[in-house]
Amino acid sequence: MGKQARIPKATITRLSLYYRQLELLEFDGYRMVSSEKLAWLCQVNPAQVRKDLGYFGEFGVRGVGYDVIDLQGQIKRILAVNRTWHLGVAGIGRLGSALLRHQNFELRGFKFVAAFDSDPAKIGNMTPSGLRILDIQDLEETVGNLNIEIGVITTSPASAQMAADHFLRSKVYAILNFTPTRIRVPDCCLVENIDFTVKLDILSYRMQNQLGV
Amino acid sequence: MGKQARIPKATITRLSLYYRQLELLEFDGYRMVSSEKLAWLCQVNPAQVRKDLGYFGEFGVRGVGYDVIDLQGQIKRILAVNRTWHLGVAGIGRLGSALLRHQNFELRGFKFVAAFDSDPAKIGNMTPSGLRILDIQDLEETVGNLNIEIGVITTSPASAQMAADHFLRSKVYAILNFTPTRIRVPDCCLVENIDFTVKLDILSYRMQNQLGV
Repeated sequence: MGKQARIPKATITRLSLYYRQLELLEFDGYRMVSSEKLAWLCQVNPAQVRKDLGYFGEFGVRGVGYDVIDLQGQIKRILAVNRTWHLGVAGIGRLGSALLRHQNFELRGFKFVAAFDSDPAKIGNMTPSGLRILDIQDLEETVGNLNIEIGVITTSPASAQMAADHFLRSKVYAILNFTPTRIRVPDCCLVENIDFTVKLDILSYRMQNQLGV
Repeated sequence: MGKQARIPKATITRLSLYYRQLELLEFDGYRMVSSEKLAWLCQVNPAQVRKDLGYFGEFGVRGVGYDVIDLQGQIKRILAVNRTWHLGVAGIGRLGSALLRHQNFELRGFKFVAAFDSDPAKIGNMTPSGLRILDIQDLEETVGNLNIEIGVITTSPASAQMAADHFLRSKVYAILNFTPTRIRVPDCCLVENIDFTVKLDILSYRMQNQLGV
């Protein structure tokens, strides 16, 4: 904490991208990588890579670069993803079901351990990933029992705040909100929102400016 | 182009976040906003807001701030989202179906006009959003007929490159890839990847460093 609290959020986002590229480099058989190459792969400039990593220590060897496996481990430690986090998801419609089956979550240490819905027609059914759908009224108790740390919201926009309130009463540490609803939470709970259309804005800008569409 | 080609991608991403906050401010009845307030809402620092906007012109009034409606319009023009883009989506499983129903896309000018799959059991069916699912073999022809500019990939990881190849032959300008597969495309086609777990890495980091979990 302390010093680290002032590290820009953009740096944290880039660390997350660096370690994904390092995984791919390892998969492709690379042992070492220069900051130039890592920067190019991540579409940032090399000084940025060195600055981002420099917040946390000295990881490279001058003139040689970074050890592909060692740097992955360091970044995972910094991001605290060298462990498993327990997730619960509220709202088992199409998006919720898709997330439960998406292989990336568990691969990266984020494990869905409970699924909640308020629809009596769904409660008690099994999800395609093998979880029994629980009544959202039982969320608070379940979060405690299963040690759920992160709540994921994939309800309808109108139900998002209700789901957030359940998660807040259950004392999860953080919420990942996939709905377009702006949810209200106290400062003690962290929230990140996922908006798919931000990436489309980037493509739109690039189509106009790089391709002249 | 030219000068604008050197504008950082992070600036473009932040512009996208600024105009979403400006929409919310308008909705809440605000006419003007200071760079301090806009920065606080977007979790960046005020100098960053001024620098990002400064790449494109002078939009604020010193000591008064920005006009909430006018600045939205300016940013939409910069991002080229003051128009409608046509999207086609390949892979109509849970995630593809969820995206087709997600209200944010059309709200932001991104309109799904065609849905493709390779599964004979799905081809010909209607999606919940009212599109008839087409055979992915007919993708090239359909992209031309419907003027599709952006291809969205929500297939299984194993089919992602095949879907990308269809889109490439059809000459879409850009691809938005929701699968964990790293797709290969020539430089003439823009690609953005959506990885839900990057936001979880941010939450993980913040839980450790802000909350001490």
